[in-house]
Amino acid sequence: MIKNVHHVGVVVRDIEQALGFYRDTLGLRVHKIQTMDDQGVRAALLTLGDSEIELLQPVVDDNGVARYLERRGEGLHHVCFEVDDVDGDLRALQKMQVELIDQEPRIGIAGRICFLHPSAMDGTLVELCEPIPS
Amino acid sequence: MIKNVHHVGVVVRDIEQALGFYRDTLGLRVHKIQTMDDQGVRAALLTLGDSEIELLQPVVDDNGVARYLERRGEGLHHVCFEVDDVDGDLRALQKMQVELIDQEPRIGIAGRICFLHPSAMDGTLVELCEPIPS
Repeated sequence: MIKNVHHVGVVVRDIEQALGFYRDTLGLRVHKIQTMDDQGVRAALLTLGDSEIELLQPVVDDNGVARYLERRGEGLHHVCFEVDDVDGDLRALQKMQVELIDQEPRIGIAGRICFLHPSAMDGTLVELCEPIPS
Repeated sequence: MIKNVHHVGVVVRDIEQALGFYRDTLGLRVHKIQTMDDQGVRAALLTLGDSEIELLQPVVDDNGVARYLERRGEGLHHVCFEVDDVDGDLRALQKMQVELIDQEPRIGIAGRICFLHPSAMDGTLVELCEPIPS
């Protein structure tokens, strides 16, 4: 069901400052920067071979990313696995009684996505993503 | 300098229990399990497309992985980028005065590796790896 690491999500306080390292020092290419007002986050996607680094900066005080930053500080936030059929995989996980955050896929910056609950994965927040062809 | 996400490192209390999810529920294939006595960790590598998940369980009480588990609990620990020339990249990072954990490459489970200091990457622990052809 899982094809690849689609991206690794990193929470930062300030995307512009973080790009000083990821883009300017490591030389990674930024292919998208977008503020998602409905999710209260600003995201930058950097190309890394077949995968991506997703930098996430909260732009509100009361969402999961803001609470993560407050509680744990900057750092690795989630890993996203690419799948072909996010609906089918979500149903399969529901049948296996895996604890989920999203019971239905929704649209994220990377495509049609859903998040599993960290308790399902020993504390690791996992996202599944079925990319939408651009 | 960076080619791909080589692996994502996840700290767990008990590898066998974690495999119940990663191997048995998600269906990922385990291609290596190894205890590295010199590093005080037991590691399982699971294939994930062109990348890997590296489960890490401390087997001593006094190394970085054990302290991470104690302080932050189970979860995402580091991300490893594949490079062609870990010696050259390490020298380039030293010239750019990037804060490092390893000043020289060393042998890890994934190949010739070095770790950057999390303060260089906004709290994210980054490993560089030049795989050794098997």
